[in-house]
Amino acid sequence: METPYLIFVGDEADPSNAKTATGVVFWRPDICVGQYKIDSNAVDLALQNMTLAEGKAAGAKTLLIGVTNNGGFIPDTWLPALKEALEAGYNLAAGLHMRLNDIPELRNLANAKGLTLYDLRCPPENIPVGNGLPRSGKRLLTVGTDCAMGKMFTTLALEKEMQHRKMNADFRATGQTGIFIAGTGIPIDAVVSDFISGAAEQVSPINTPDHWDLIEGQGSLLHPAYAGVTLGLLHGSQPDYMVLCHRVGLTAIHEYEHAVLPPLQEVITIYEQAAQLTNKKAKVIGISLITKGMEKADALASLKAHENEFNMPCFDPVLTGVSSMVDVLEKIDA
Amino acid sequence: METPYLIFVGDEADPSNAKTATGVVFWRPDICVGQYKIDSNAVDLALQNMTLAEGKAAGAKTLLIGVTNNGGFIPDTWLPALKEALEAGYNLAAGLHMRLNDIPELRNLANAKGLTLYDLRCPPENIPVGNGLPRSGKRLLTVGTDCAMGKMFTTLALEKEMQHRKMNADFRATGQTGIFIAGTGIPIDAVVSDFISGAAEQVSPINTPDHWDLIEGQGSLLHPAYAGVTLGLLHGSQPDYMVLCHRVGLTAIHEYEHAVLPPLQEVITIYEQAAQLTNKKAKVIGISLITKGMEKADALASLKAHENEFNMPCFDPVLTGVSSMVDVLEKIDA
Repeated sequence: METPYLIFVGDEADPSNAKTATGVVFWRPDICVGQYKIDSNAVDLALQNMTLAEGKAAGAKTLLIGVTNNGGFIPDTWLPALKEALEAGYNLAAGLHMRLNDIPELRNLANAKGLTLYDLRCPPENIPVGNGLPRSGKRLLTVGTDCAMGKMFTTLALEKEMQHRKMNADFRATGQTGIFIAGTGIPIDAVVSDFISGAAEQVSPINTPDHWDLIEGQGSLLHPAYAGVTLGLLHGSQPDYMVLCHRVGLTAIHEYEHAVLPPLQEVITIYEQAAQLTNKKAKVIGISLITKGMEKADALASLKAHENEFNMPCFDPVLTGVSSMVDVLEKIDA
Repeated sequence: METPYLIFVGDEADPSNAKTATGVVFWRPDICVGQYKIDSNAVDLALQNMTLAEGKAAGAKTLLIGVTNNGGFIPDTWLPALKEALEAGYNLAAGLHMRLNDIPELRNLANAKGLTLYDLRCPPENIPVGNGLPRSGKRLLTVGTDCAMGKMFTTLALEKEMQHRKMNADFRATGQTGIFIAGTGIPIDAVVSDFISGAAEQVSPINTPDHWDLIEGQGSLLHPAYAGVTLGLLHGSQPDYMVLCHRVGLTAIHEYEHAVLPPLQEVITIYEQAAQLTNKKAKVIGISLITKGMEKADALASLKAHENEFNMPCFDPVLTGVSSMVDVLEKIDA
């Protein structure tokens, strides 16, 4: 994907619909030149407001649609701005269910101008079925009690700290925000179900024995709607190690209150048993906890209590960072 | 789908590539008027050989492609016959990965003639994500140690026997052969992974409390490539009861020899634990065994030994029929 990006926030006023933009700006400020609004009430990413011309002058190559609405479609109100961007020489990139390439006026204009429409939710063609065979290289997968438990954030934080320590480690993206950040990856939840684990095998291919693939997890084995995605990703990733991501105090799946969570120890067992189908030594070795909203002292006490109970690093990547986890990984690496 | 069918076996000589044709002919002889070969060495379905004109005269409405090749594509050698069939007024139906509707010459001809190209591997649009909410009606799902363990056959045999006993029961198809047989269903393995359990919920929707949905299982939770499909189907089906399908003597997943099967008791536990996420009372209540190739006395002894070990009906639907299983279901129904 051609970078840097000018980030399109359109007329979206709800910050919770700007998760992609926020993620890309947080993790890759170096490739975000500014934000582009078509309504002054749109969410603010703490980037400089720019016109399309100003973005171009600042070097932007691609207009990244960083917001979504419920349903993941491209509203008519965005079309004039998107066409203008193509006229101004921008590629367009989106991770929505509705595809840029399915809108004839955008596709024709992009073709005429020699520009690219990147639809990140569109998996590559010809993914093979999984083979389940062991492959060299170390693999760590983040898993969760639910969606939105900080799996992507934790994985990126691990990559940053490991690379800082000169460990041979790469983040592997499996969702659209992660793909915008990494510039590559496969949107696992958009893959046809027969090929989930095959896609996961492609995301973290064979590598040198000292190399770490840090794979972004998806969904949850405890989620009534998405557990199939999670299991296919788990089997294809063949992780040696898993980090369990959880929000302190969460008792049931979001919007599925009837899906009550079992105790964390049982969650760990469920993941380890399922993972061992393709990697006998698969093990949960750390817990990444969201403590946001708690008093700092309470949050730290909760992390400590978890460490006492589970006897492994229990950290909040935002509050405490991930070095306690990387200390453990570094010893494995040696 | 418009029936009856003329079954196209083309030039396919390998009986193991004619599974769809064999299944449809076995379970729905009433809607198969004959077979159509383009090579005299093609597999024989024990149906009358017919030309396209003879099939038409016998009332056939749709030419069903009953064979597949490795890769699931439509070879050039079939195209003249398929075009001729459209010219003769047949709809075409196929369950291959390659779609009839993606071949412009077939699509254009079908449009011009007002005929339909049925691509069964193509799931419906706008499947919602699963909601995981309990729904009324009784549900039984067949599950397996591996693919090709007789899940579809067992499910259809149960439907036949239950309907014979005037129980309120319907087979629910989740694969292409099952869909040809039932005339409706969703090809679960072709659904985008985010929507697997949502699709499964659609396959066996809310029903009256006395009604049995008999749901065709797919894949295996022990399969390194397909377990994600199996888990999504399991969660969306919310079965009260499961019948485990297994081939006596199978020790590892076919073509994945490194995926060694655990003991059957453990397989039962794995399925029950996974199913209980969306239905707390989910339980394996019978074992359907393939004993094909064994001496009859050995086969019967094996079924008996399984019954002694597992204390539930253990039957081979071909050798012994399924009445021991339906006897149990009938008591639940009362």
